Parts: sequence; C-alpha cells; structure tokens
Amino acid sequence: MSLLVVGSVAYDSIITPQAAADEVLGGSATFFATAASHFTPVNLVAVVGDDFHHQDIAFLKDRKVSLEGLQTAPGKTFRWKGRYLENMNDRETLYTHLNVFETFKPELPLSYRNSPFVFLANIGPELQYAVMQQVTKPLFVAMDTMNFWISGAPEPLRKILSVVDGLIINDAEVKELSGESNIFVGARKIQAMGPSTLIIKKGEHGALLVHNQSYFYCPAYPVTLLYDPTGAGDTFAGGFMGYLAKIGKVDDASLRWAVVYGSALASYCVEAFGIAAIRDLSAVDIQKRVDALTAMTRLPA
Amino acid sequence: MSLLVVGSVAYDSIITPQAAADEVLGGSATFFATAASHFTPVNLVAVVGDDFHHQDIAFLKDRKVSLEGLQTAPGKTFRWKGRYLENMNDRETLYTHLNVFETFKPELPLSYRNSPFVFLANIGPELQYAVMQQVTKPLFVAMDTMNFWISGAPEPLRKILSVVDGLIINDAEVKELSGESNIFVGARKIQAMGPSTLIIKKGEHGALLVHNQSYFYCPAYPVTLLYDPTGAGDTFAGGFMGYLAKIGKVDDASLRWAVVYGSALASYCVEAFGIAAIRDLSAVDIQKRVDALTAMTRLPA
Repeated sequence: MSLLVVGSVAYDSIITPQAAADEVLGGSATFFATAASHFTPVNLVAVVGDDFHHQDIAFLKDRKVSLEGLQTAPGKTFRWKGRYLENMNDRETLYTHLNVFETFKPELPLSYRNSPFVFLANIGPELQYAVMQQVTKPLFVAMDTMNFWISGAPEPLRKILSVVDGLIINDAEVKELSGESNIFVGARKIQAMGPSTLIIKKGEHGALLVHNQSYFYCPAYPVTLLYDPTGAGDTFAGGFMGYLAKIGKVDDASLRWAVVYGSALASYCVEAFGIAAIRDLSAVDIQKRVDALTAMTRLPA
Repeated sequence: MSLLVVGSVAYDSIITPQAAADEVLGGSATFFATAASHFTPVNLVAVVGDDFHHQDIAFLKDRKVSLEGLQTAPGKTFRWKGRYLENMNDRETLYTHLNVFETFKPELPLSYRNSPFVFLANIGPELQYAVMQQVTKPLFVAMDTMNFWISGAPEPLRKILSVVDGLIINDAEVKELSGESNIFVGARKIQAMGPSTLIIKKGEHGALLVHNQSYFYCPAYPVTLLYDPTGAGDTFAGGFMGYLAKIGKVDDASLRWAVVYGSALASYCVEAFGIAAIRDLSAVDIQKRVDALTAMTRLPA
C-alpha cells in the first residue's frame, strides 16, 4: 500500500569528531522516503528552492518516490549545519536557514489523498493538522515531534496528537511531553492524549513499542562505527512505516516487526554521512540486520 | 549445584526523594545470596561485627544460605549511608564506615571449596584473587568490580580478570575499563583481558550479554515505581548465577535465560528498601516477571 510523508527536504552540513560533509541531501522527508522506498511506493510532500539539484530529483525518482507533491518555490532550499560532540550523542546547531521552508504549506495532490499510511515528520503541529484535513480515511497515521513544539506550541500539538494513531519520538521527548520521569508512566499519559501506539527511540539503547497495553523492545544493532547520527530517527520511521505499508495491516505482530525493520534501517544510516549508507541497500542487506537483531533477543525453549 | 558468594554484609541507611530507611540489612553478598537462594543453596563468605542482629542470621539461615563462611569479628558491621537524587540514578554517599570489613580476609571453609559456581562480589581485586586460590576446579566464576578499583588498582584487577569466566558490570564501567566509548568495541577489549562472558547492566535500558561472539539483549521490566535502587546490581547477579547453578550448565541458552531471571529479580528489588521486596518472593512471582520480560521481545513468526 502507498505511504505518504510530509516533512522537510534540506541540504545538511555536518561536522563530526572524525570528518565533515558539506551540503549533503538531508531533511526528514528525504531520510524517511529513502528508507521507506525499500518497502513500498512513497508519496512525498515537501518544498525545495530553485537551487535544488537535478541529480537529487533524479535520485528520488529512481527510488520510486512520487514527487508530484514536491513544491518548488523561488529561493533557496532549507539548510542546516551542525557539529557532533565527542560522545556523538549531543550536537550543536551552527545554523538553521529555513529559506523556502519558512512559508511551506503542505498541499496534497489529489492522487495522494487516499494514501492508507501517513507519516507526519517533524514539522509544526499546525502544518501536521493541515495535512490531516486533506487525507481521506487513512488506515494508520503516525507523527514525529520535538522539544521545540512541545514547549513552544503545546495547544496545537495536543490537537494533532488527539487525531493520530502513532507517535514516534525519543525518550527525552516522552519525559518532556508527559512531565513524567518514568518512561512507562509517561507513555500511558501520552496514550491518553490520543495515540494508542508509541514508538520510543532510545538511540544506542534500542526502541520500545507501546501498543495499547503491550510492550515490545528491540535492541539497537551493535554498530561499532558510529559515523553520523543525522537522520537516524527519520530513517527508523521510514523503515517502520514502510514495512507496515508493505504488509498492509497494523496489528501487534506487524508493529513489532516494523520496529525491527526500522531499527535495521537506522543502523545502516549512522554508518555514513546523510543517506549514503541507505540509498543503495539490497533486500539481503536489510534482512541480514533484521536477522542479527532477532538473534539478539532469541530465547531457546 | 551449589553457589559460592564472597562479598559484603552491611547495614545501609538510605534516603530517596520519597522516603528514608535506617540501618536495613544490605551489602553485596546479602542481596546476591537472597536473590540466588530462590534457585539454589548458597555458600556465603563475608564478615560481620559483634553487633550483627540475631534476626538477620536467622533470616539468612531460613533462606538456606550456609553461614559457615560468615566470620564474626570484634567491632561493628560495615555501614553505608547514601542519598538518591531526584532522577534516582545518581546518588551521593553520606558515609562509608568499613568497620570490621576493613581487615576482611576471605577464608573458605573446606566444604565450600568445591562449589562449582562462584561469584566474586565487588570487593578489592586482591581479595577476589585470594578466593580463586582457595577454590578447586569451579565450573563458572563471575565477578563484579567498580570504578574505584578500575582506576585505583588496575594491575590487581587485570590479574583477577585474566582468571575468571564472567564479568558483571554496568555500561559506564565498561567504558572506563576499556577506554572505549563504544560499548561493543569496549566489550571485545575486555573479553581479551580474560572473561569470555560479559553481562553489561544498563539500568532502565536493560542488560546486554556478550558471550564469545554472540549478543543477547534483555529489556528492563517496566517498573513504574522505582523506590530504592540499592542492591539491584547484586540482586541481578544473584538471580543470574542462581539460575545457572540450578540448571548446572553454562551454554549460550542457559546464559540467556539467566539474564532474564536476573532482570526479573532486579525488577522486584527496586520496589522496596533493601531486600524487603525479594526476601519472600514465590516461584510464581518470579515466573510472572520472566514471562512479562520474554513477552516484551517476542516476535511472532
């Protein structure tokens, strides 16, 4: 089944303790769509400037990502520059130039409106809500958010949360959004705000799925070379939603497997700058990490 | 099979943001033996002062813990007082009075020397080594350590590490001992120092078993009321080693299950002060949490 993503397309400049990269293709919708494209056709809604590179258009088309919803506006594409500290967990933003993204209004082409699977990447909650008003009877809608919106736009955030099925966020955001230091107590409070399904990303500590009353835990793949964490969260979401859309149903079993596929994709993402490590993955590559992850929690009878 | 533990027996005073307890029975050997006693007979080696309470002796005997190796020395029993900060992870030590523990020399009664399973709790590496010279052909020896010995006694620590089978430590200690920020790289370096089996405790993030080349991950049980973390690590070790000693073999499958049993015991430990929540557990109580933990990583075919 088809999968809609609304988010950002950007050029990222990244400095890590080991290396640096200038203006590589990034943005939440890019990472998401690239990861998800290994499972299912993706309908992308985003905006780029008139400086967007032809080869990046060609790449996305090649990955069978529909660009009918990609707006081109006069001006420059969204740019972000950041530096990772020695621990590779903390980072400082050197600049964020929203450029054409500043006035982005998501508009869904008619052909996108009946997408059964929808992912609202980390954009303003009002924009996320505007997308919901354009989709018709989706089967499963998941969203991302961040501390900026949790503290800066609590009311619009509550409004969008009340109408989505799933929320994919990290553990620090769970604590901030719920006001609870215990992640399990916090998860219950967030479920009461709307989403019955929470996917809580804990970086090197894996990911926790809370689905109604049930918990599922997937460890992180033992990555020994953490090269660039940028986009790992959106890549996780892309693998997760891509798998669900491919399977075409949302029950406890498929959600569990979706977390494993999301984790597998994210483990590749961090091994190179930008989308370099996920753009050309084969089904065998993905299966290899899925198998390794399932072996990590296997309990013999 | 029988299980030997060498460690401390103490009276702990604990302050948490919610409550406080004065002079409750604690110490690494106490937590370990109480947890392990649910699985197998335990041989305990430690020292107490002449102020040690009769009812605590009676309790340990009641749990089928052999006290033939419990020395009584003139003076006071080891006392520790600590305060947990709001996050319940960080704590400050208010005092440590070693008392009779200061001159503790582990001496194994003859009947203990052929214990097939041995746990060297967190005591000085020279004392741990002295124990190894008194045991005859053990099947599996595991040890604990801490930052104090990693930085303060690196040579004796290397010596004991080179002769044990397993090391049970937390993730921060893995980083400190290996000098590696990546836990998987660090684990390989520590395996090269001796122990082929590492059990890395990550608190609320679960526990990672590294056994030769294989990884196993067990999540933490979703505890919603973290009351007192004191002793959780030793309780984990007691459940882990107790299960192994009960099964009587050390292969990949039994090590994996042992991590699950250790996690189950530790999840109870933190729900009350001292050993209050683990002293009277039934087999059904333990199985309930083991089942919950296995359900958390179950992947339907």
